[in-house]
Amino acid sequence: MSYVAPLKDMLFVMNELAGLSEVNALPNCEDATPETVEAILEEKAKFCSEVVAPLNHSADKEPSSWSDGKVTTSKGFKEAFRQFGEAGWQGVQHPVEFGGQGLPKLVATPCIEMLNSANLSFALCPLLTDGTIEALMTAGTEEQKSTYLTNFISGKWTGTMNLTEPQAGSDLALVRTRAVPQDDGTFKLSGTKIFITYGEHDMAENIVHLVLARTPNAPEGVKGISLFIVPKFLVKPDGSLGERNDVHCVSIEHKLGIKASPTAVLQFGDHGGAVGMLVGEENRGLEYMFIMMNAARFAVGIQGISIAERAYQQAVAYAKDRVQSRDLAGSAGAVTIIHQPDVRRMLMSMRSQVEASRALAYVAAAASDAGHHHADEATRKTNQAVYEYLVPIVKGWSTELSIDVTSTGVQVHGGMGFIEETGVAQYYRDARILAIYEGTTAIQANDLVGRKTSRDGGAVAKGIIGQIHKTETALAAGTGEYADDLQAIRKRLVDGTRALDDVVNYVVANIKTDIKGVFSGSVPYLKLAGVVLGGWQMARAALVAVDKLKAGEGDAQFYKAKIATARFYADHVLTQSSSLRAAVVEGSAGVLALTEEQF
Amino acid sequence: MSYVAPLKDMLFVMNELAGLSEVNALPNCEDATPETVEAILEEKAKFCSEVVAPLNHSADKEPSSWSDGKVTTSKGFKEAFRQFGEAGWQGVQHPVEFGGQGLPKLVATPCIEMLNSANLSFALCPLLTDGTIEALMTAGTEEQKSTYLTNFISGKWTGTMNLTEPQAGSDLALVRTRAVPQDDGTFKLSGTKIFITYGEHDMAENIVHLVLARTPNAPEGVKGISLFIVPKFLVKPDGSLGERNDVHCVSIEHKLGIKASPTAVLQFGDHGGAVGMLVGEENRGLEYMFIMMNAARFAVGIQGISIAERAYQQAVAYAKDRVQSRDLAGSAGAVTIIHQPDVRRMLMSMRSQVEASRALAYVAAAASDAGHHHADEATRKTNQAVYEYLVPIVKGWSTELSIDVTSTGVQVHGGMGFIEETGVAQYYRDARILAIYEGTTAIQANDLVGRKTSRDGGAVAKGIIGQIHKTETALAAGTGEYADDLQAIRKRLVDGTRALDDVVNYVVANIKTDIKGVFSGSVPYLKLAGVVLGGWQMARAALVAVDKLKAGEGDAQFYKAKIATARFYADHVLTQSSSLRAAVVEGSAGVLALTEEQF
Repeated sequence: MSYVAPLKDMLFVMNELAGLSEVNALPNCEDATPETVEAILEEKAKFCSEVVAPLNHSADKEPSSWSDGKVTTSKGFKEAFRQFGEAGWQGVQHPVEFGGQGLPKLVATPCIEMLNSANLSFALCPLLTDGTIEALMTAGTEEQKSTYLTNFISGKWTGTMNLTEPQAGSDLALVRTRAVPQDDGTFKLSGTKIFITYGEHDMAENIVHLVLARTPNAPEGVKGISLFIVPKFLVKPDGSLGERNDVHCVSIEHKLGIKASPTAVLQFGDHGGAVGMLVGEENRGLEYMFIMMNAARFAVGIQGISIAERAYQQAVAYAKDRVQSRDLAGSAGAVTIIHQPDVRRMLMSMRSQVEASRALAYVAAAASDAGHHHADEATRKTNQAVYEYLVPIVKGWSTELSIDVTSTGVQVHGGMGFIEETGVAQYYRDARILAIYEGTTAIQANDLVGRKTSRDGGAVAKGIIGQIHKTETALAAGTGEYADDLQAIRKRLVDGTRALDDVVNYVVANIKTDIKGVFSGSVPYLKLAGVVLGGWQMARAALVAVDKLKAGEGDAQFYKAKIATARFYADHVLTQSSSLRAAVVEGSAGVLALTEEQF
Repeated sequence: MSYVAPLKDMLFVMNELAGLSEVNALPNCEDATPETVEAILEEKAKFCSEVVAPLNHSADKEPSSWSDGKVTTSKGFKEAFRQFGEAGWQGVQHPVEFGGQGLPKLVATPCIEMLNSANLSFALCPLLTDGTIEALMTAGTEEQKSTYLTNFISGKWTGTMNLTEPQAGSDLALVRTRAVPQDDGTFKLSGTKIFITYGEHDMAENIVHLVLARTPNAPEGVKGISLFIVPKFLVKPDGSLGERNDVHCVSIEHKLGIKASPTAVLQFGDHGGAVGMLVGEENRGLEYMFIMMNAARFAVGIQGISIAERAYQQAVAYAKDRVQSRDLAGSAGAVTIIHQPDVRRMLMSMRSQVEASRALAYVAAAASDAGHHHADEATRKTNQAVYEYLVPIVKGWSTELSIDVTSTGVQVHGGMGFIEETGVAQYYRDARILAIYEGTTAIQANDLVGRKTSRDGGAVAKGIIGQIHKTETALAAGTGEYADDLQAIRKRLVDGTRALDDVVNYVVANIKTDIKGVFSGSVPYLKLAGVVLGGWQMARAALVAVDKLKAGEGDAQFYKAKIATARFYADHVLTQSSSLRAAVVEGSAGVLALTEEQF
C-alpha cells in the first residue's frame, strides 16, 4: 500500500492555523519562506513515498535480526538511510554551523510526520539522533559538539538514549548503572540498559549512546544521575574512529510492533568498563535528558499522527474499492462499502482525529519557534510556556488516538484487516508502543497536572482558554451558507471549553489537599485537553474555510470537506468532554475505593 | 501467566442478577440446581486452568501449520481436545438424547467464558461445533441428527460454518458456490470458501462442514441460498467413516491473532464435486444459518468478556508485583505500581467493564432459557424477544470493549506489555478479531436498528427501559452507609436511560424518512445500549451488595468491592452516554456530508 503525503492539509495547517508567515518573520527564520517550505515538503514527500514507504511492510515481515552481538537491519534500510543522510534530511531543524538547514520546528514537523507515516520503524533512528543532537547542543562542550554533531547531521553516525534499566522504567530514581572517574578525565561505565531503540544496527559507522549513570558518592535518587557520551567506537583526536568500546548488544526484543526497529539490551563494562565522557555537570544528567526527552516526546506525538494518517489512507482506498451490499438508499446491485453509513462514520472518525491532532501539533511547533526566536523576551516566554503545556498533550493525546484510529482502520477492512498480508494490522501493532515509550500517557498526564498546570496556578491553561473564547465569538458571528455548521461547532466547543476550565480549576484547587484524587483524573484531563484543543483548531479551520469559500479562493472542495470534518469532530469527538470532565471532577471515589486485596 | 476462573463473580451474577433459581424452576431445567451448577463450574475451572490455559502462549508462538493440505495444530491441542470431549464439555447445553447434559444456557455460558479465557484459539473449535449442533437440531432430519450429533457431542467430530467467499463477506447475497443435485438425492458442491475457522485440523476423526451454496435455478440474492452438510469423510450407513470427500484445505491465513486457530481456505469440488446433503428445505439456508449464527454471535460476545477477564487478571498481578516510583501520598522508597492512581484507574476501567459485560450476557442467557422453557407462552415470547434484542449488544459491545480492555492491559505493563514474551500483547492481538467475525459491529448494529428496534416500533427496548426505571426507584430509596454511592449511580443511570430512550425514539421516528441518517448512528446506538444496560446490571449488583452487607451475609469484601466497581462504572463509563446520544441524534450531518471524491 502506497503512501501519499497529505501536503494540502499540511500546508493549510501551517499557513492558516500555525502562522508560517509569522514564523518566517522571526529572527533566524528568514529562510523559511512559503516557497522554500513548499519545495522542501514536496521533496521530502517524494523521498518518503518512493524510498522509505515501500520498505515498511517487507521490513515488518523480516525484522531486524541479532546474531553474535551484531544487528542486521531489514532489507533496504541501510541504503535508504544512506540516501536520507546524503539528502540532508537529518539536519532540517539543526544548526547551519554543523551542516544543518537551521529551519524552524514548524517546518521540521511535517517532515518528521511524513517519514513516520512512511515507515515508523525506520524513522525511529533519526528521531533518536534528533534528541541526541538537542541534548549535546544544550549541555555539550564545544569539543563534544564539533566531534559529534556534524557526523550526526550528515547521517554518518546515529545517537541513542539510554535511560531504562530492568528495575528502572518510568522511575529513573532507580537507575543503578555506575560511572567511575578515571585519571584522564573520562569515566568507566558498567551496567545494563534495556529498551534501547537502535542501540545496535548496521546503518551507520558509529553509534553514540547518551547514558544515564551514577558516579561514586552521588546522591540517592534523581539528583544523583549524570549524563555520559559512550560511543560504540571511540573517537580519536583527529575525528577518525578508534577502538571498539566496551558496550555490547546482548539481545534484541521480540515485539508486538515496530519490529524492524531493533530494541537492544546493552551491556556496559563487562570487559573492563565502557569509556564515557561526562556531558555538562555531574548530577545534572536528568535535567539534560529532559531536553532530549521533551524533543522526543513531541516527535512521538507526531508519530501518532503519522501512523493514524497512514491507516486512514489505506482505509479510504479499501472503502472505495471493496464492493459489498447494496446502498441503503436503494440502488439495485452491490456498491463499494464507502456508501455504507457506518463505513463513512469510521472514516470520518479517523480523518477528523488525524486533522485535529495534526493542527494542534503544528500550532505547538510554531509556539516553540516563537519561544526560541521571537525578538521580544516576554513573547518568547509566553510562547515557550504554551509549547511546554502542549507537549504532554501532543504526546499523550495523539498517541492514544492513534490506537483508536489504527483499530478503526482494521475494522473498515473487516476480516481482511486481520490478515497480516493486508498491512493494516501492522499499523495497529506499531501504534501500540507510542503511548508507552518516551513516557507513558500517565507520565505525560502527571507532567500536565504537576509542572504544567498546578505549578503556575493554571495560568497558561487559562491563557489558552481565553484564546478559545475568541474563536467561540467568531463562530457565533458566522452567517450564510455554513451558519448551521458553525453554530453546531460553537455549541460543542463552548461545552468543551467550559469542561476544560472546570477541570483546570479543580486541579489547582485540590492538588494540595487531595493529591491522589487529582492524579486519579490526570489521564482523563490530558484527553480532555487534547479533545478540546484539537476541537479548537478544527473550529479555527472551519472559520478559515468559510472565509475562503466566501472569497472564492483556493480549492472549494478542500474547504467544504474541512467544514464537514470539523462538524463531525464537534458532534462525535468534542462531545466526549462532558464524560471526561466527570471522570476528573467527580470520578476519583470509584478509582481509589478498593483495597489492594480486593483486586 | 496462569488463569483463575472468577467463580465468585460468576456465581454472584448467576444467582443474584440472572436468577439461576428461577431458571432451575423452569421445565426441563430441573437438573440445574445451585449445588450441581457450582460443582460443574468448579470442575470446568479446573480443566481450563490446568489443561487449556497453559497451552495459550506456547500455541501463539508456534501456531497451527499447513502442509500439503493437512493442518497440524499447536502442541498439546490434540490431547487437550480429547480430554475436553471425554469429560463431556462439548455437551453441556445440548440434548441428553444425543449424549449431552441438557443444561440451561445460563449454565453453559460461564463454561464457555472460562474456556475462552483459558485459550481463545482452542475454544473456537467447540464454539463452531456448538453452532453446527444448533443448526442441525433445528433443521436436520432425524437421520442427520442421529448420524452427526452424538459424534459432535462426544468430541469425536467437529463442525464448521462455511459462509464467506472472497467476494461475499458481510454480504451473503453474493455467494456463488454451486450445488448440483444428483440422482441419489445428494448434491455435488463446487466453489471456494474462505475464513473457515478450524476448516482443517488434526484434533478430530471427521470435520463436518455446513456450507451455504446455490442450487441451479435458485433465485438471485439471499433467497436462493441453501444449506448443505459436507463431511470431510463421507459417513457410511453403519456410521463408520468412508471415502475422503472432495473438499480440501488449500492454505491457512497468517493472522494478527488467534494464531493457533487455523483459518482455512477450503476448495470444494476441484476433483469432481464434493458430496453434500441438503439440510432442511432448498433456498432456506440463510434462515438456518442464522440460527447457527445467533448462537455463535452470543458466544463471540462471551469471547470478548473472556479475553478481557484474562487481560485484567494479568494486569492486576503485574501491578501488585512491579515496584516503581514512590507513593504520591508520600512514602519513602518505591512501591508497587498498584499504588499509582492512574494504574488504579486503568485496573478499575478493565474490571468494571468486564463485570458489567458479564452480567449483561448472563442475564441475556437466562432470558434465552425462559424463552425456550417457560411454561407460559406469552412469557416465553417476551423473554425470547428480550434475548434477541440483547444478542447484537452482547456481541457488539462486549467485543468492542475487549479491544479497549486488552489495550489497557498492555498499558498497565508499560514497555513490558509490548514484548511478546510477557503474553499480554497476545490478548490485544487475539481480541481484535472479535468485533469482526460472526458479523462486524456494524452488522450487529444494523440488526439492532432494523430487526430489533424499528420492526416492533421500539416495544422491546421500551419494555427494558421500563425495567431500568424500577432499578432507578430502588436506588433512590437507598439509605445508610452506601447512600452516596447509590445516589451517584442513580444519577448516571437516569441520564443514561434517558439518552437510550431518546435514541430509541429517534430511530423509530426517523427510519422511514432518513434511513442513511439513522444507520449512520447505528454503532453509537449499540454502544450506548451496551453502556446503559451494563450500567443497569452494575446498579442492580450494587443494590444486592448493599442488602447483603446490611444483612451481614456472605463475603463483605466482595460486596464492598462490587459497590465501588459499580460506582466507578457509573462515573467513568455510564457518563459516555451523553456523547453517544449526540452521535446518534445530532451526529448524522457530519457523517454523510463528504462526497466520495472529497475523501
